[in-house]
Amino acid sequence: MWVPDPRRSQDSGRRTFIKLGAALAGGALFSRAAQASDAFPPKDAPWSQSLGPGIVDRPYGQPSQFVKDVIRRNVPWLTASKESSVSFSPIQDLNGIITPNGLFFERYHAGRATVDPAQHRLMIHGMVERPIVLTMRDVERFPSTSRIHFLECPANGGMEWRAAQLNSLQFTHGMVSCAEWTGVKLSTLLEEVGIKKEAKWVLVEGADGAHMTRSLPLEKCLDDVLVVYAQNGEALRPEQGFPLRLFVPGWEGNVSVKWLRRIKLGDQPWYTREETSKYTDLMPDGTSRGFTWVNDAKSVITFPCPEKPLAGAGLYEIRGLAWSGHGKIKAVDVSFDGGVNWQRAELKEPVLTKSLTRFTLPWRWDGKPALLESRAIDETDYVQPTITQLRKQRGSNSIYHNNGIQTWQVKPDGSIYDVQLA
Amino acid sequence: MWVPDPRRSQDSGRRTFIKLGAALAGGALFSRAAQASDAFPPKDAPWSQSLGPGIVDRPYGQPSQFVKDVIRRNVPWLTASKESSVSFSPIQDLNGIITPNGLFFERYHAGRATVDPAQHRLMIHGMVERPIVLTMRDVERFPSTSRIHFLECPANGGMEWRAAQLNSLQFTHGMVSCAEWTGVKLSTLLEEVGIKKEAKWVLVEGADGAHMTRSLPLEKCLDDVLVVYAQNGEALRPEQGFPLRLFVPGWEGNVSVKWLRRIKLGDQPWYTREETSKYTDLMPDGTSRGFTWVNDAKSVITFPCPEKPLAGAGLYEIRGLAWSGHGKIKAVDVSFDGGVNWQRAELKEPVLTKSLTRFTLPWRWDGKPALLESRAIDETDYVQPTITQLRKQRGSNSIYHNNGIQTWQVKPDGSIYDVQLA
Repeated sequence: MWVPDPRRSQDSGRRTFIKLGAALAGGALFSRAAQASDAFPPKDAPWSQSLGPGIVDRPYGQPSQFVKDVIRRNVPWLTASKESSVSFSPIQDLNGIITPNGLFFERYHAGRATVDPAQHRLMIHGMVERPIVLTMRDVERFPSTSRIHFLECPANGGMEWRAAQLNSLQFTHGMVSCAEWTGVKLSTLLEEVGIKKEAKWVLVEGADGAHMTRSLPLEKCLDDVLVVYAQNGEALRPEQGFPLRLFVPGWEGNVSVKWLRRIKLGDQPWYTREETSKYTDLMPDGTSRGFTWVNDAKSVITFPCPEKPLAGAGLYEIRGLAWSGHGKIKAVDVSFDGGVNWQRAELKEPVLTKSLTRFTLPWRWDGKPALLESRAIDETDYVQPTITQLRKQRGSNSIYHNNGIQTWQVKPDGSIYDVQLA
Repeated sequence: MWVPDPRRSQDSGRRTFIKLGAALAGGALFSRAAQASDAFPPKDAPWSQSLGPGIVDRPYGQPSQFVKDVIRRNVPWLTASKESSVSFSPIQDLNGIITPNGLFFERYHAGRATVDPAQHRLMIHGMVERPIVLTMRDVERFPSTSRIHFLECPANGGMEWRAAQLNSLQFTHGMVSCAEWTGVKLSTLLEEVGIKKEAKWVLVEGADGAHMTRSLPLEKCLDDVLVVYAQNGEALRPEQGFPLRLFVPGWEGNVSVKWLRRIKLGDQPWYTREETSKYTDLMPDGTSRGFTWVNDAKSVITFPCPEKPLAGAGLYEIRGLAWSGHGKIKAVDVSFDGGVNWQRAELKEPVLTKSLTRFTLPWRWDGKPALLESRAIDETDYVQPTITQLRKQRGSNSIYHNNGIQTWQVKPDGSIYDVQLA
């Protein structure tokens, strides 16, 4: 979405008051005198008086030249190298629930592998009856399944565990994205090779230089896990594991191993580097919570936010995203006073399991300071906690699984700040 | 989806037979001896032994270098100029129901307009109480709605009205795509300006050099029509009308006017060039059917197809797309003998109204000639007709609204041909 900065833009030197739905009182007060002097319409703009470039001028289309600032970004001080780092999706600029592939957040452990699909193989072995090595063509020939699901890095919001330190929606919440994934059910592949009775765990390994490796319980793998080759209709992008990745719905992103080359069945977890020294939650007493796979229910207001301030008092539509690794979002509440009072927001269709879900709520801002918050409730009746509640249970040493309520402070000039309440 | 041409590819010099689901008899017959000599895995490929490029190497991501042939294409002889022409989406390579924005089909009447969003205006006038001119910021401030809908040019399949002449899924059916659209309900904007009692029709006009202009009944405009600024999460692409287009769910694509600059209310249609000399259906008696807006139920098998032949006898998953401008797809039937016998296919979730819907059906091909067909049935119980039935009613002078059943001829070598049955 192209949105000019309302503090800088002076489109027509006027202030607009827009009626947000019939249910709200108050009419529209557009200044038509100012608009009468506008060049268009009914007068023609230059682009209305000429031919543009023809079809297949760009056989693979690209965004408008006017949205160049809608891009993935990183926080330079966050990681020592870009090869083992993250980029954040510009969710302050996005609409609906689908994240376009070009703006899907990135997480690499050894950079973006360039894998030749003709040479790529998927080996399935260990406690199976018939070990196998599959080509991409083999994988694509199995029955196909498509699902719309979110993907979230467990470190999304990780910099906010100790304090509100990143005044940006892109950086506090931009490690979540959502797409339509197409591939083969892992259960279908495992049925093909035959699961031995003693098998209880599944090792998945990536073909990148990090050999990203995780242990997963067999039960989840037989439930809804996919081996995917397409995202939003087209082949996976290289940064998402082209030509093949695992996709584990609702679970922390790193277990959805990219550039998937190997699946091994065993009777116990492997305790790999990425589930011991990394991706465990350091508790106040010095112990670690391990295998904390599920991304609990979470939500955030995407408009307004630090990047998208308010343009003066008036009526607005509060917009946000909610998601849960446990299933569907049941409800989202919004507060304008830092969590004292709550109003139920509208959930936008479609509400899909383990998918981003949009919510909106009209709000008439009176120009005074406010504290905006949203809290998600999922179909298990779990309620998104405050960051204070999370710290009471888990301390503030961890960087993972911060699903705390985000507070946006609204200042009288309409600017928005990332704050945490005591 | 990256799919090697099975006639050329020799991945491992073997033929694979894959079990398509537990319901089917017959085991898997992978040749493991051949695979044991493959380099990977367990051996490491070069990309497993090195670092790849880091994050935000490409702040806006791009497809893999290995899928360069998955692009929009045109038929050079079809139109006199590329500025008033169409490109076709490579639906033979796509998965699921979402079309990525870079591969969405194109249709221009005066080339691709380059519109500055800060200068763009939408005027609403005519039989309204309070005529208005809106900036993009104004439009984006209204309550937002997102919907997943297909868009189809009424000339999709138009070259097949007289005979099967394009041996390609991309060219026979590639003027249909599907995306998540976000914008404002047109009813909300019309409520804002106040509809005069005598108003019955709505004129919509584009800001491109063609001033693409169409008349729409007010009733449809108050139903489900949107004024959209985003597609699959991000701003509209220039080829889809950036920064603003109309979106008329289920109706022929040209009424979803791109680069939307003007909406005028009146008491009768305007009979513009694009609804008189164009976009009318020339009948056998020389008269024309006008205002044939709705795209009736249609379907096509996307695998196999001329671009994606079969690789020898064995089990396959037949895959296809179905859609209807009248609502949801209720069922899809598949025939292997040119329409004598039919089997019900599986519809894939989600099944959304006026959206592409995926269907699949397992098929064991015996290596003999076959005639593959699919027919869609929508929630109104309308059944997709044969091209012969269509011609009986409408002759073969028209190029619009061919929603006839597509027949794919399967030859013993696995190649697929576009044919029409007598």
